[in-house]
Amino acid sequence: MVAAEDPESFFATAPPLGDAGAVAARLQEFLARNSSRSHPSEGGGRRRIVCVTSGGTTVPLEQRCVRYIDNFSSGHRGAASTEYFLKAGYAVIFVHRRGSYQPFCRFLPDDSFLNFFDITTESKVQVVESHTTVVKKAIGEYSKAIEGGSLLKLPFTTIFEYLQLLKMVATSMSSVGLHGMFYLAAAVSDFYVPWDSMAKHKIQSAGGPLDMKLSQVPKMLSVLRNQWAPLAFCISFKLETDSEILIQKAEMALNKYKMNVVVANLLATYKEEVVVVSDGERNTIRRCSKDEDLEEHIIELLEKSHSKYIYSSADACSKNGYEKVIPLGIESLA
Amino acid sequence: MVAAEDPESFFATAPPLGDAGAVAARLQEFLARNSSRSHPSEGGGRRRIVCVTSGGTTVPLEQRCVRYIDNFSSGHRGAASTEYFLKAGYAVIFVHRRGSYQPFCRFLPDDSFLNFFDITTESKVQVVESHTTVVKKAIGEYSKAIEGGSLLKLPFTTIFEYLQLLKMVATSMSSVGLHGMFYLAAAVSDFYVPWDSMAKHKIQSAGGPLDMKLSQVPKMLSVLRNQWAPLAFCISFKLETDSEILIQKAEMALNKYKMNVVVANLLATYKEEVVVVSDGERNTIRRCSKDEDLEEHIIELLEKSHSKYIYSSADACSKNGYEKVIPLGIESLA
Repeated sequence: MVAAEDPESFFATAPPLGDAGAVAARLQEFLARNSSRSHPSEGGGRRRIVCVTSGGTTVPLEQRCVRYIDNFSSGHRGAASTEYFLKAGYAVIFVHRRGSYQPFCRFLPDDSFLNFFDITTESKVQVVESHTTVVKKAIGEYSKAIEGGSLLKLPFTTIFEYLQLLKMVATSMSSVGLHGMFYLAAAVSDFYVPWDSMAKHKIQSAGGPLDMKLSQVPKMLSVLRNQWAPLAFCISFKLETDSEILIQKAEMALNKYKMNVVVANLLATYKEEVVVVSDGERNTIRRCSKDEDLEEHIIELLEKSHSKYIYSSADACSKNGYEKVIPLGIESLA
Repeated sequence: MVAAEDPESFFATAPPLGDAGAVAARLQEFLARNSSRSHPSEGGGRRRIVCVTSGGTTVPLEQRCVRYIDNFSSGHRGAASTEYFLKAGYAVIFVHRRGSYQPFCRFLPDDSFLNFFDITTESKVQVVESHTTVVKKAIGEYSKAIEGGSLLKLPFTTIFEYLQLLKMVATSMSSVGLHGMFYLAAAVSDFYVPWDSMAKHKIQSAGGPLDMKLSQVPKMLSVLRNQWAPLAFCISFKLETDSEILIQKAEMALNKYKMNVVVANLLATYKEEVVVVSDGERNTIRRCSKDEDLEEHIIELLEKSHSKYIYSSADACSKNGYEKVIPLGIESLA
């Protein structure tokens, strides 16, 4: 079995993205449109662009995939965060698992969907009165984001698709420099089966117990930070089930991968509480009521940190004469 | 590691269903209501009840589950089949994977959901004109099934939940004897990690490559056939990626597990074609157009086979004096 635990061999052996050309074109068009705009926040400046990743990646166990390993993630955090980033004036590239929660659609019932509709006396189908307000608000905000060209949705399923998309988005976003943000909320597999050592057909069960050897997925956070988008403001997530090791692992990630922020959460309480860990700071954000979105407060905090980062980096750059690495559009902040 | 590959130890070590009591009560009430009704088909007789299983089961790799192995299955076949079983007069127990396709909701778009709605001049939210017909039909049929008490929906996620639900449904359905049918379309995991040998917390990735040993899930088809519901008409499914072994594996399942019918399909063509294999017969069903549901023809064929089975079994029973095993309600056929 080939190890394929370094980034180069991961990409060299991964099955190529089916629609890479079309995705690249949409991405370029989106970035060009949005980076010519200005940011609505105090101080203005070039429009900020965030790549939100959301949902879990799968690891196929067979090339013609019947079985796969999946990571728990509904994508609710990524979808909710996307809504608040848009509200804060960011353009959002929403890299999401197919079938996971979508921005502005979080209110939709999972199951008893048809209870949502009424048939009117004129034989039109309408949303029942009790849900009208929430649906109307959602349609309004969604249409605004789509028609305004501020939201680009890119779907993935497997770890192969996810990492190729992330690489493509990140290398394209290097052009927006400090104004770019990565909000890496997707639950990315730690282990995988390299494509070329994978069973071609469905694994047969007659052979007795199954012994599976999985390789480690290369740690792409380092590559993102060091090569793909070195100036971007980067937020990664740590989800653990054991509270004993959570903060320690978050701080390790902060140092090891040079993240700007790590959002730490526990599986048991991730809807109620997160700890936002950055260099020398820990902010605990807790939800006060069920109607409140934790994400509203997370994004509020991150937007401020991103502003500080842009100002201080631009400042440091101009003091040190590093104008060459200053991205386009930074002039207005100098 | 405990092997737990026999049914007894599987159930003994599985984490118990959270709401077993409530599910059992709903099930009893559903069976009592429907078995007092008559079947609409030619010849009449006691109402037939089918248990449709649908979607893939997950195999948790950790007790506080972050990672799991999943089986590919959208649940489209099970959801579509449920619609046609209801149309054919069956009462349906729809045992489905949470989040998989639901009967009468197959038309719903996956993603661009909000494009579905319009806001009227009176500020009501309504379904856009082009989709009205299909939504109206779906709401009508869904309401009829729910209000008529012909559809019971029971959700599962893990292999532990699925097999416990199946056992509960099957042992309850033994009371409807020959009039019961099992249409086992769910994609059930072949391998699993027994609960008591499972990692309690999230598996850490720092320890290098992962070596996973999985046990075989005990073959419950035999138990269903021999112990839980020995008189029921049983249909299982075979999905393979390799056409070479498909029919051979379907015939093996037919003999080994004493299924009445095995529906064989290939991953590459399962939407267009299936082979319905029964003792001495093979029927290939092919879809002629994209607007057609393959399931309509499958259910038509199965309903006829089930009728034959009821008549011939009742006949055999009365000839051989096996009245003791004849289920209630068979009198009308004698």
